[in-house]
Amino acid sequence: MQYQSIAYDIKDHILTITLNRPDQMNAFTVEMANELVDAFTRASADDEVRAVVVTGAGKAFCAGMDLSTGGNVFGLDESLEPSLEDMHTRLDDPAIFEGVRDTGGRVSLAIYDCDKPVIAAINGAAVGIGATMTCAMDIRLASEKARIGFVFNKIGVVPEACSSWFLPRIVGISQALEWCYSGDILTAEQALAGRLVKAVVPAESLLDEAYKIAARIASHSSVAIAFTRQMMYRNAAAQHPIEAHRLDSLGMFYSSRDDGKEGVASFLEKRAPEFKGKVSSDMPEFYREWKKQP
Amino acid sequence: MQYQSIAYDIKDHILTITLNRPDQMNAFTVEMANELVDAFTRASADDEVRAVVVTGAGKAFCAGMDLSTGGNVFGLDESLEPSLEDMHTRLDDPAIFEGVRDTGGRVSLAIYDCDKPVIAAINGAAVGIGATMTCAMDIRLASEKARIGFVFNKIGVVPEACSSWFLPRIVGISQALEWCYSGDILTAEQALAGRLVKAVVPAESLLDEAYKIAARIASHSSVAIAFTRQMMYRNAAAQHPIEAHRLDSLGMFYSSRDDGKEGVASFLEKRAPEFKGKVSSDMPEFYREWKKQP
Amino acid sequence: MQYQSIAYDIKDHILTITLNRPDQMNAFTVEMANELVDAFTRASADDEVRAVVVTGAGKAFCAGMDLSTGGNVFGLDESLEPSLEDMHTRLDDPAIFEGVRDTGGRVSLAIYDCDKPVIAAINGAAVGIGATMTCAMDIRLASEKARIGFVFNKIGVVPEACSSWFLPRIVGISQALEWCYSGDILTAEQALAGRLVKAVVPAESLLDEAYKIAARIASHSSVAIAFTRQMMYRNAAAQHPIEAHRLDSLGMFYSSRDDGKEGVASFLEKRAPEFKGKVSSDMPEFYREWKKQP
Repeated sequence: MQYQSIAYDIKDHILTITLNRPDQMNAFTVEMANELVDAFTRASADDEVRAVVVTGAGKAFCAGMDLSTGGNVFGLDESLEPSLEDMHTRLDDPAIFEGVRDTGGRVSLAIYDCDKPVIAAINGAAVGIGATMTCAMDIRLASEKARIGFVFNKIGVVPEACSSWFLPRIVGISQALEWCYSGDILTAEQALAGRLVKAVVPAESLLDEAYKIAARIASHSSVAIAFTRQMMYRNAAAQHPIEAHRLDSLGMFYSSRDDGKEGVASFLEKRAPEFKGKVSSDMPEFYREWKKQP
Repeated sequence: MQYQSIAYDIKDHILTITLNRPDQMNAFTVEMANELVDAFTRASADDEVRAVVVTGAGKAFCAGMDLSTGGNVFGLDESLEPSLEDMHTRLDDPAIFEGVRDTGGRVSLAIYDCDKPVIAAINGAAVGIGATMTCAMDIRLASEKARIGFVFNKIGVVPEACSSWFLPRIVGISQALEWCYSGDILTAEQALAGRLVKAVVPAESLLDEAYKIAARIASHSSVAIAFTRQMMYRNAAAQHPIEAHRLDSLGMFYSSRDDGKEGVASFLEKRAPEFKGKVSSDMPEFYREWKKQP
Repeated sequence: MQYQSIAYDIKDHILTITLNRPDQMNAFTVEMANELVDAFTRASADDEVRAVVVTGAGKAFCAGMDLSTGGNVFGLDESLEPSLEDMHTRLDDPAIFEGVRDTGGRVSLAIYDCDKPVIAAINGAAVGIGATMTCAMDIRLASEKARIGFVFNKIGVVPEACSSWFLPRIVGISQALEWCYSGDILTAEQALAGRLVKAVVPAESLLDEAYKIAARIASHSSVAIAFTRQMMYRNAAAQHPIEAHRLDSLGMFYSSRDDGKEGVASFLEKRAPEFKGKVSSDMPEFYREWKKQP
């Protein structure tokens, strides 16, 4: 796929995905959604990529859904009357896929399934889907110029992109509700106080700081990192720790047989490790099955 | 229902529920529980109400269960030997309903089911059920005079009102355990540091601050707000983000067809929106079914 | 069981478990794991124990898995190819139990099942399993000399001991991911800022502070405390608050019939309560059944 709305650049094992419609403040479109789904799926499969940084071209991160067309901006098929059962049984039926499913949610699910950690470098306005898509990313860094708004209720719609799953797990249920009810545009400092972002940094050093975190991740075992990412999200939502124990045990068993051996040896020999495990080929058999959505 | 223990006042689309036994520090009784269940159910159905503020008359918010009768203050039928199965199969059987079920929990469940956001304006002592009932509310504001105590273990009983479901999701599991184990009476500042309350404000401006938040909510789409409230609580507890995606998609689909159109139009036309959606009649069909308790 | 790797001392109803291999910085072994499982199981059943404090002998809390043997330090049976199904159906089969199951996870599950609150007094380095085992404890206090590291990914393995279940519930999903990805060694202050520890105290007062918290717990109803601990962990992971209500109701029903009567009476008579309930014999019938792992 050739990308029109995003840029996809790999350097030193770090993929930078740039939301790339700077003249429209990187406003979100169905095209951008499809490209992001493709990009995260591709990054997940590409061993060259060990961490992903997402940022925006120009002044904004993403100013939200592109409302410039007016009318039915969400591209939904208003002749339908979808039910909850439809969403369980016909999720990939073209009528539902194109006419009903939230495009931002398709992006968040692709990020959730990605085998590589994802860091949001929020360089400016991140509003609506521009805010909620970052909730599915693992770590958020904000430029001092970042402005973040869960503005949905203010314009008569609801927070999407699975943000009601992610946001309460990042900042707690009360903070999540408050931000969504108010629709306020948060300053970077307010987002930090609410624990949405890890840090606020000067605009000019935002990408450097994101790359520092990404480089550290890239230096570790990709196989162990992939496992860790999926274990954390899944067990954070599991009912009993025994479920974590089942996965922990398998994760430890298989990782310690491969990259773990090199890790321990390098530690004892006081040298840097050389991890050889590849996510594309060295995840144990159960992993793909386990990751499938229910 | 005529209320004896609470006051119910609507102004500018904001309902104020006042715990109204000031001479008893608004101590909680079965009568108060029944009136609160009725009030939240009524508020949920009444389109005039777009947000709810709960506060206490006089010096206290709610000093806990009314212990003045001594003996069996919880009004339980001690001749029973209820099992977990009873709680699954006979929850509304009169013997269990009256003789076993936690009255505070019936209030919390009514708040959980409410289609309107709920703000606690904690004006003074909030102890026992006075503390736990606020956990089911979306946002807590504290007067500098507020004192909050999860005192149950200290008097030989357990935290109730579904607080073991809500509190860890607000402040994290360790903070929740620590407060319940210790039974300490927290100052407003301690509650703020532990992230239980959004802010601490001077006593004389507590209600004004609560009404500011409520008025902002009341200015947005009631239909979108109702959706958002239920999505957030349910998806915060869902196992996989695909469950959020199913609901997000329906929420966005239906809201964008109605109030969302006005929201986008008003945004493009740079004017205030005029939302016409009513919670009583304009929630899509699946909504009531979805909300039913499992 | 005679303990070789830990010490087990009860005083004033507080059990102190000391990780006791100071010459090896209390490095974790299969022996230590088995002794910890035994110790928490024993503490759970012993009415003399009302709270547990865990600390390390000498300078370290626990420097992680004992890597001094090199090679297969995790003691796994590398001839196996365990599947997720094995972990569901053969968890206690000796081949899986010894050759696959994560030893740290067995400790965390024993802590989770314990009927007594557990406080970690982190006196020094807490690295790898030294960090993750504290996540299953209810409250963490850190000496200013504490250093905490989730170093797994750095050495090619994954976080274990059910930490992917506990850690996000303590500090939020993003902080949990960041610490595990980076493998950074956190100072006590960093752990406090991330809300992993309740407080940072001078090294010489660490145990005193831990005992203060434990003594307060020990003065309350053991039966109510045991209920509270299990309700909080289970309901924090339950899907709907009605599940909490079912347990709340039973917890309140049974506790208010026994220790709760004394608690209310002592409150009204303005005297200290004398709770007689024993965890070993006075938990209601449903409790053991309910606690069983799924």
